[in-house]
Amino acid sequence: MRYKAIVSYDGTSYAGWQTQNDQPSIQQCLNQALSKITNTDMKVTGAGRTDGKVHAKGQVFHFDTDKSFKDLKQAINSQLPEDIYVVDCQQVDEDFHARFSARWKHYDYLINNGQYDPLLRNYTAYIARPLNLQAIKQAAKVFEGTHDFTSFNATKKEEISDQVRTVYKIDIVEEKGIIKLSFYGDGFLRYMVRMLSQTLIEAGLGKVTTEEITRMLSAKDKQACHYNGQPQGLYLIEVGYDAYNMH
Amino acid sequence: MRYKAIVSYDGTSYAGWQTQNDQPSIQQCLNQALSKITNTDMKVTGAGRTDGKVHAKGQVFHFDTDKSFKDLKQAINSQLPEDIYVVDCQQVDEDFHARFSARWKHYDYLINNGQYDPLLRNYTAYIARPLNLQAIKQAAKVFEGTHDFTSFNATKKEEISDQVRTVYKIDIVEEKGIIKLSFYGDGFLRYMVRMLSQTLIEAGLGKVTTEEITRMLSAKDKQACHYNGQPQGLYLIEVGYDAYNMH
Repeated sequence: MRYKAIVSYDGTSYAGWQTQNDQPSIQQCLNQALSKITNTDMKVTGAGRTDGKVHAKGQVFHFDTDKSFKDLKQAINSQLPEDIYVVDCQQVDEDFHARFSARWKHYDYLINNGQYDPLLRNYTAYIARPLNLQAIKQAAKVFEGTHDFTSFNATKKEEISDQVRTVYKIDIVEEKGIIKLSFYGDGFLRYMVRMLSQTLIEAGLGKVTTEEITRMLSAKDKQACHYNGQPQGLYLIEVGYDAYNMH
Repeated sequence: MRYKAIVSYDGTSYAGWQTQNDQPSIQQCLNQALSKITNTDMKVTGAGRTDGKVHAKGQVFHFDTDKSFKDLKQAINSQLPEDIYVVDCQQVDEDFHARFSARWKHYDYLINNGQYDPLLRNYTAYIARPLNLQAIKQAAKVFEGTHDFTSFNATKKEEISDQVRTVYKIDIVEEKGIIKLSFYGDGFLRYMVRMLSQTLIEAGLGKVTTEEITRMLSAKDKQACHYNGQPQGLYLIEVGYDAYNMH
């Protein structure tokens, strides 16, 4: 039987979703928890990878097991560290695949643009100089829609040749010195949200114009953009498995 | 010359404000930072102690130095770890004393009463069962005003015999599953805010009535209350040096 689970985590202490060089990973913790409760060797499949220090409120993974549990969610959580928590776990059709069935994703990027706050240091990118919100909103329009995002991600073309993606929308709100960039799209390549976010930050600092960003996008060139946002500001909020509806 | 400084910190990795048994403390970090930049042995005096894992947005301390700095605040921060940050530092009259001159304090106690959230685990007390906000508000009325708080703190009578304190008000608000208890008072004894907070939580769980809390308070007995809230929900928000004005 196949199960779909939604997991929330504080990425601060992890090298990312996927294990690299024996560093701690979210996936490894989930594999170990499931292996422990099923007494078999388990491997979960995630909707996508998150980088080191990146957080998630709604990462999705699937796994298969024929063991039965009174409360599978509770059983998994009982074996997880306190910075990882399965918020939902449901049996699904055998053809459900956390990655291939995903239709859209929602990421938030949080920027502390006020006074430095030690309580937010692992949970926001910190930008000391004041950002021009109107400039950020104007620049974000460049990215909305369907574009070849070759210039704004680090996935090699040999790995994934088609780097055309649709960004349905980028919402930008500011509250009490915290700026939130919300990205909704049909898929995001490696570092894409962080590169888009840092580009918008540079626009807000007046270091790059909307016209220059438009040219960077048109260039479809891996050397066009050297901006990459601090990882701790990034949150994977939701993975959608139905058609995206503007909301 | 005497200086007053306001400091914000994430208490997660500290045994508290004051050093105990060679465990890391906020005060020690500040002493070390100031000793380093002044090249003398410095000791700061805080407005009060905070317990291990307790946070602060506006703890106050004072210190004396005759060295001059172009930007003292920046100089201190350059020697502090990233989870401690001096938000303000000003020269004050020689008779200013961080503890003895303090007129009132404001503490917040944050409770996550929604789904467990790994991102909030070090920054809220977690209470899984739903709390009755009306019961909490009713119980809080027992504590407002001037009372002998002997039953609701852990400071020994031999240490401080007069345990009469005034709680100006307790504000209670709920937003998105997070309940915030805000305490304003002329002084709080050891564990007092955490004991009051946990008593209000128990009232919200229906485990103790307003009448029982009233009797506990009247008892003036160190054995009357065995409730003590989780430390990571507590924040020292502000220390006031002027007369308290309801706000």
